[in-house]
Amino acid sequence: MPRNIKLLIAYDGTDFSGWQRQAGRRTVQGEIEKSLGKVHKESVNLTGSGRTDAGVHAAGQVANFLTTIDSMEARRFVPALNRILPEDVRILEAAEAGEDFHSRYDAKSRTYRYNIIPGSAFPWELRYAWQLWRQPRIAVLNEFASFIRGEFDCSVFAVPGDKSISRSRYISGASFFYEGGRLVFEITANAFLWKMVRSIVGTLLYYEEKGLGPQSFVEILASKNRSLAGPTAPPQGLFLWKIDYYRL
Amino acid sequence: MPRNIKLLIAYDGTDFSGWQRQAGRRTVQGEIEKSLGKVHKESVNLTGSGRTDAGVHAAGQVANFLTTIDSMEARRFVPALNRILPEDVRILEAAEAGEDFHSRYDAKSRTYRYNIIPGSAFPWELRYAWQLWRQPRIAVLNEFASFIRGEFDCSVFAVPGDKSISRSRYISGASFFYEGGRLVFEITANAFLWKMVRSIVGTLLYYEEKGLGPQSFVEILASKNRSLAGPTAPPQGLFLWKIDYYRL
Repeated sequence: MPRNIKLLIAYDGTDFSGWQRQAGRRTVQGEIEKSLGKVHKESVNLTGSGRTDAGVHAAGQVANFLTTIDSMEARRFVPALNRILPEDVRILEAAEAGEDFHSRYDAKSRTYRYNIIPGSAFPWELRYAWQLWRQPRIAVLNEFASFIRGEFDCSVFAVPGDKSISRSRYISGASFFYEGGRLVFEITANAFLWKMVRSIVGTLLYYEEKGLGPQSFVEILASKNRSLAGPTAPPQGLFLWKIDYYRL
Repeated sequence: MPRNIKLLIAYDGTDFSGWQRQAGRRTVQGEIEKSLGKVHKESVNLTGSGRTDAGVHAAGQVANFLTTIDSMEARRFVPALNRILPEDVRILEAAEAGEDFHSRYDAKSRTYRYNIIPGSAFPWELRYAWQLWRQPRIAVLNEFASFIRGEFDCSVFAVPGDKSISRSRYISGASFFYEGGRLVFEITANAFLWKMVRSIVGTLLYYEEKGLGPQSFVEILASKNRSLAGPTAPPQGLFLWKIDYYRL
């Protein structure tokens, strides 16, 4: 009877073509499956909580796989995989999961963080943040953010041609705050449309800069009109921060 | 009459062959002089507070140069140079300095920080820290560090063949502390021998792990015997943190 192992994973997305395995591309799922293959001496499928795009980072991605290795404590997969993996992906934890645990289907919510540097930056921050070159008004951003809370039709933030059956998502948290002198946007939802977080960040900052009032911003959201969204914020500021589960 | 401009500089040392200009090598001084050359349309010499080695970073390097450009406010050199410079070196500030200000001769003290990660790390920390894979006893490290304070013959921390006329340095501060869950060693001195900070870090951690008592550690320091030093800590954990001047 194979055991189901759950991994907590961090990666620097800079040099990856995103999470999902693709032939001929360097992806996070691909690298971890390669290292699982070496440990197991047979190919192993890894199921992630969801995809991240090229250049997007993760501090708390979750994935699971079935192992036929009986002799190894779950936590021993941490050093065993890290020894093989490249330095830009790290296994932070490994634990036994229930036999029917599924990283994607069982996820209750996903939390992303987006880092913004208003002014000048240290060179080691530029891989992990959007350098804005202006000081946005955080009170205006948080007022805008309050309007996207709750059950919300996210069409205005969808990419052109989005094929989702429903574009409604439940956003349980969305706010800007300062951490270590940097502006951070944190958003939690049951699920996200493709590129939705970066579209939200780009749109909120675009209309804040334009000086739009709250009533007009609400009308833009309600329009469900993609062409009214602002530019998509660049990928390097985005981190998949945390996945919450119904059960662990 | 040329004006003397002082720069505050940060760089990620990973992809540099250190600070000092060298033919055919990518160095920080070389990159900044290249960008100064483009702004001035003639070659400009940049004087740094001191060299840093390949792979060593800086959050607060200071350098100065003479400019013949009359029409530009000093602070305008920040965007003018950053526009040209690669992303791994950033000018943080630029200011008018007295005509006889010299970045190296006028420095009163240099402060370095060394980052240590005791256990597992996020991938974006590995370029900027030494991953130790054990939890050192900070009380022992700080007791050892207290013995290198004051006027101190640093021969035990010199590289073989060090040609310094005197190996005495005045160390005004040396201590370990935790910041954001990471162990940091901070040291301030009037000046340092080549590779001295990394030798101190490596030696303190080596004897802490060996379980050496304080009296034996003092004897090793007093021996001035280089062969009793521990291994040199790797460069990526080291940051030139701050230069203090007698006058600005």
